[in-house]
Amino acid sequence: MSTSAKKKVFVTQQQVRFGDVDPAGIAYYPKIYDLIHQAFEELWDVHVGKRYYHLLCEAKLGFPLVHAEVDFKQPLHFGDRPVVSITCFKLGRSSIGLHYVFEVAGHVCVDAHMTVVCVELETLASKPIPDEFRAKFEEILEEA
Amino acid sequence: MSTSAKKKVFVTQQQVRFGDVDPAGIAYYPKIYDLIHQAFEELWDVHVGKRYYHLLCEAKLGFPLVHAEVDFKQPLHFGDRPVVSITCFKLGRSSIGLHYVFEVAGHVCVDAHMTVVCVELETLASKPIPDEFRAKFEEILEEA
Amino acid sequence: MSTSAKKKVFVTQQQVRFGDVDPAGIAYYPKIYDLIHQAFEELWDVHVGKRYYHLLCEAKLGFPLVHAEVDFKQPLHFGDRPVVSITCFKLGRSSIGLHYVFEVAGHVCVDAHMTVVCVELETLASKPIPDEFRAKFEEILEEA
Amino acid sequence: MSTSAKKKVFVTQQQVRFGDVDPAGIAYYPKIYDLIHQAFEELWDVHVGKRYYHLLCEAKLGFPLVHAEVDFKQPLHFGDRPVVSITCFKLGRSSIGLHYVFEVAGHVCVDAHMTVVCVELETLASKPIPDEFRAKFEEILEEA
Repeated sequence: MSTSAKKKVFVTQQQVRFGDVDPAGIAYYPKIYDLIHQAFEELWDVHVGKRYYHLLCEAKLGFPLVHAEVDFKQPLHFGDRPVVSITCFKLGRSSIGLHYVFEVAGHVCVDAHMTVVCVELETLASKPIPDEFRAKFEEILEEA
Repeated sequence: MSTSAKKKVFVTQQQVRFGDVDPAGIAYYPKIYDLIHQAFEELWDVHVGKRYYHLLCEAKLGFPLVHAEVDFKQPLHFGDRPVVSITCFKLGRSSIGLHYVFEVAGHVCVDAHMTVVCVELETLASKPIPDEFRAKFEEILEEA
Repeated sequence: MSTSAKKKVFVTQQQVRFGDVDPAGIAYYPKIYDLIHQAFEELWDVHVGKRYYHLLCEAKLGFPLVHAEVDFKQPLHFGDRPVVSITCFKLGRSSIGLHYVFEVAGHVCVDAHMTVVCVELETLASKPIPDEFRAKFEEILEEA
Repeated sequence: MSTSAKKKVFVTQQQVRFGDVDPAGIAYYPKIYDLIHQAFEELWDVHVGKRYYHLLCEAKLGFPLVHAEVDFKQPLHFGDRPVVSITCFKLGRSSIGLHYVFEVAGHVCVDAHMTVVCVELETLASKPIPDEFRAKFEEILEEA
């Protein structure tokens, strides 16, 4: 009898607003990266439980993007309310690889792998991810 | 005696403006994608010689992004004036792979591979790249 | 004996995100206009009860801005969660004057008067505000 | 014999890009404020002769917006290349009122009065405009 625990996925929902779409009625792609960043902030606020704002202003840590690979499989349209699922595909000493899947009505629209690195905001020097946060990213770690 | 023709590279220059940077003083990454799109519009206007505006409004063609892979090697700071070099790393029947390198003072800051597909704007159905445009992308094609 | 009914105010809450702020740590003002537009979309979705997306796509109506007067009384900072109150200060045949007040911890940060006009999206010609919508704006009309 | 000196006007040209327009094909208004800010940066770089970047980073001065009144007379469309004229309509001890007129093919599209205040970046406390800059704003001062 299997008792394998299902790995957690963090899920949030977004909305494609008027200001996000181009003359063709589909999301202008730099705006999709803006949505990805907003989902990242949600992940901190809700899943990690550390407000992203506090992380920067109090802990003086930042998470700049070092590598991004994104598949745009279907266009996102004005009015769409994509469900965004986030898992962790890589967890290094300082680096975190996050996998975002945007789905609308069961269809994958955007599939993104974004690698960020933990840095001291002041110097931009990389730092180990603090343990309290690491545990939260382990919870959503994809199985090998 | 060498007869190797040097492949052309399209070069343009941009500026990291006040509205592009975040509280850490470095470019907010969705804004870097905005810069990439602006460089893409320049490529059409100046190198291809077809104004991007005319392409959409008159030829009714669009070039949505289908895949993007970007390395953020160094942060772009407020006031930086990156030199952007564009070459073509892949040229299919409908798809164009464009390689953007952002350099500041000789250091590569951003290295992006962006694949777009030629579509009819109305239906978003893929179309072969018209020959007159294809020739221009061949000119900046990277050697195998 | 006064029986004056208190006029309704539509209230929504927003968040000043990482991508909204500049190197000084305060909201870059074009982003504040973006927040105003998002509050306007909320007003349609929640108070008027007509999804803004449907208004544009189905009713083929738009509400372009014709006049805007905004006081920036206090800066909005990263992490602020302004409470936005919207009332109607003018209701013409086609035009709607909306008054937005952004407050953080009881202090007014932004006070904006924005006048939009009802138009047919196709032609941009002005049209009378449909009665079903007009009634909703009357509900939040400020007293003379 | 007339000796009336013609007051100087600072003129710059902009472009309405793909990412600036909405599904109706006209500029999304928060993007127009972005264009206004870009014209303001040009004014510093070219007319005042102090790079806006240096102003913030070296002189540690900022010019946050305190009041804005804008008429949107005609829509700006994708591909438009508005000519922007800037004059000064008010010059106080710390405050500068700037008047921006956007014209396309001789028609005024946007007419904006924007009042900014000179502040120390660190504290956001208002400061007198340094004399070297004041002289440049006097040059473009509108006649009473």
